[in-house]
Amino acid sequence: MASSSCYNSPCAACKFLRRKCLPGCIFAPYFPPEEPQKFANVHKIFGASNVTKLLNELLPHQREDAVNTLAYEAEARVRDPVYGCVGAITFLQRQVERLQKELDAANADLIRYASCNDVSVPLVGPQREYELGGFHQTHNFPFPYPPPWNDQSPSGGHGRGEDN
Amino acid sequence: MASSSCYNSPCAACKFLRRKCLPGCIFAPYFPPEEPQKFANVHKIFGASNVTKLLNELLPHQREDAVNTLAYEAEARVRDPVYGCVGAITFLQRQVERLQKELDAANADLIRYASCNDVSVPLVGPQREYELGGFHQTHNFPFPYPPPWNDQSPSGGHGRGEDN
Repeated sequence: MASSSCYNSPCAACKFLRRKCLPGCIFAPYFPPEEPQKFANVHKIFGASNVTKLLNELLPHQREDAVNTLAYEAEARVRDPVYGCVGAITFLQRQVERLQKELDAANADLIRYASCNDVSVPLVGPQREYELGGFHQTHNFPFPYPPPWNDQSPSGGHGRGEDN
Repeated sequence: MASSSCYNSPCAACKFLRRKCLPGCIFAPYFPPEEPQKFANVHKIFGASNVTKLLNELLPHQREDAVNTLAYEAEARVRDPVYGCVGAITFLQRQVERLQKELDAANADLIRYASCNDVSVPLVGPQREYELGGFHQTHNFPFPYPPPWNDQSPSGGHGRGEDN
């Protein structure tokens, strides 16, 4: 939850930037003094000026989410300067592809079982139908925009679980 | 693939910044003049100075991936100023959770079938074993760092497929 420490002590942003934290400071609700690293990361990766511009272009109720996602991206980039949080996206995409393949195979087995035994499988879970022709099929992953790099592992560190 | 257009015309970065593109320009291999929007996005979100610092801290062979992931994050933030590419991470996390649940349910059905019919299910796919007690179990998702926001939908636009 956003909180303003502006009237007690300077917010983490103003303290970092060594300036007076005035009432109405755009950073104060989102960068409390007790979380100095949050602003340090955002400043290092995005810069105070760019974040100020971005926040000023948003509605007040959107700003907390924007700051938190910027802080998330910044922390990921500090930890992994080459791939940042895009490494997590690649890892998750591979998880989705693998799970989808396994689910397709399991569904195929269930169809085969049901046809061999001339039965329909009872519902398991609120969204599942195992009667022949009525399988719950997950849609292909509608990723909003494809990753811009080639088909290479972006980071070995994110590849855990790929070899099982 | 990185390409240098430095000696023909200024790279997209130098053209954007209205400066001479000198030999050895750190941007030139990654921001060819025919892709002006790539640098415009990166400049808007991260700033030229921050990107220069980041590239200078990397080994030359890491820079192309770094630029491409920065460009990806920048484009996502331009499209979605509140959530950026973190919206995609949240969407993918939910996909993984949903697929894992469905796979667990399908595996449970297969175990039940196998035990009722006193048979073992033949292998389907290179990694699958359907003999009782030998099911392929996917591991829990080892996400490198949890998202910093509360359990709220970050973006309705990324929630496609959640209601099926």
